Amino acid sequence: MEKQISKAVISRLPRYYRYLGELMEDGVERISSNELSQRMHVTASQIRQDLNNFGGFGQQGYGYNVKFLYTEIAKILGIDRQHNLIIIGAGNLGQAIANYANFEKRGFVIKGMFDINPRLIGLVVRGIEIRGVEDLEQFIIENEVQMAALTIPKTKAPEIADRVIRAGVKGIWNFAHVDLNVPDDVVVENVHLSESLMRLCYRVCSMQDGKSGEKGAS
Amino acid sequence: MEKQISKAVISRLPRYYRYLGELMEDGVERISSNELSQRMHVTASQIRQDLNNFGGFGQQGYGYNVKFLYTEIAKILGIDRQHNLIIIGAGNLGQAIANYANFEKRGFVIKGMFDINPRLIGLVVRGIEIRGVEDLEQFIIENEVQMAALTIPKTKAPEIADRVIRAGVKGIWNFAHVDLNVPDDVVVENVHLSESLMRLCYRVCSMQDGKSGEKGAS
Repeated sequence: MEKQISKAVISRLPRYYRYLGELMEDGVERISSNELSQRMHVTASQIRQDLNNFGGFGQQGYGYNVKFLYTEIAKILGIDRQHNLIIIGAGNLGQAIANYANFEKRGFVIKGMFDINPRLIGLVVRGIEIRGVEDLEQFIIENEVQMAALTIPKTKAPEIADRVIRAGVKGIWNFAHVDLNVPDDVVVENVHLSESLMRLCYRVCSMQDGKSGEKGAS
Repeated sequence: MEKQISKAVISRLPRYYRYLGELMEDGVERISSNELSQRMHVTASQIRQDLNNFGGFGQQGYGYNVKFLYTEIAKILGIDRQHNLIIIGAGNLGQAIANYANFEKRGFVIKGMFDINPRLIGLVVRGIEIRGVEDLEQFIIENEVQMAALTIPKTKAPEIADRVIRAGVKGIWNFAHVDLNVPDDVVVENVHLSESLMRLCYRVCSMQDGKSGEKGAS
């Protein structure tokens, strides 16, 4: 994979990966761009353009080999390897993520959970003990933690982000409703639920006011 | 508001709204595009372009009136009005949303929570009783519910989405990892956490492989 793939294509890969995984579960071995197009509600030409980025996966008259394409997309996304993750903030959202067993199928291993609430520390969620944040740095180093999910209030997030980054974390999955400033070699993926709800609200209101022709999923 | 605002601008409005809200909390009454630019790490010209969509909010030498702009953006997003919401799926994720008090400040009122798990039905989360799904349609009609958050497994989501839409729901906030097919007058806002985690993974891996110059938040 030497070729640079556009950000737009990358952002669509997880969806392809999901559909290909479902096809595999259904025992489908190969699929044409037209069939995939019907399932995914994306044009066949978009699918061919996207998937041709990875070289000759599709063959005329044969279609795509589902398992091969699934495996290649996993490699491109980096989810063919193990990634060690911690969750900071063991409230409902943190626990929801810890319980989401699917993550591990994709190579994500939740190594630890942390909280500052003494009532939560010591509890075990899905085999993972909730720890205090005192030994956060040591834990990250000893467990080769690459990524940290921050499911904590926005007032605490910048300080905790600084601490995990200093200890070696390279990716922050940020659920706190604040923008984090991070060094050049660290990435932040934001999940700002209230912004998502506001977008939904705008689209519902637009639809009702007849202001927009926009529809369907975003 | 007759002018059509681009989807890109709309998608940035919740972030402006958050910064303006924080400025108000700090007692700031007006702000220049340059100051806002420094806070938000967005160019001042981008800010002017975005905010000029709404007509003369900014005045040369005076800057933006924070409260006025905050109020106008709320109107555009539709969050100046009350919206009735239900949560279907009372597990950790559903409870996390129910507990997120901020939502109500923006006009979202959680009218009810639903689950199929008999052990959850009857429990009360933040003053909201968890109900079975038998009387879902009636509840939606009686409470004028506009939006439904689906925090249920993907196998259940399409059927439940059909039911709430038939009862009058116009917006689905979909956390289930499946694409929903909805009528033209209904909108879906997806929050697919595992896709978000895969994007984070890709960006961390790219950074480490030195494949990408990309950085910062997305």
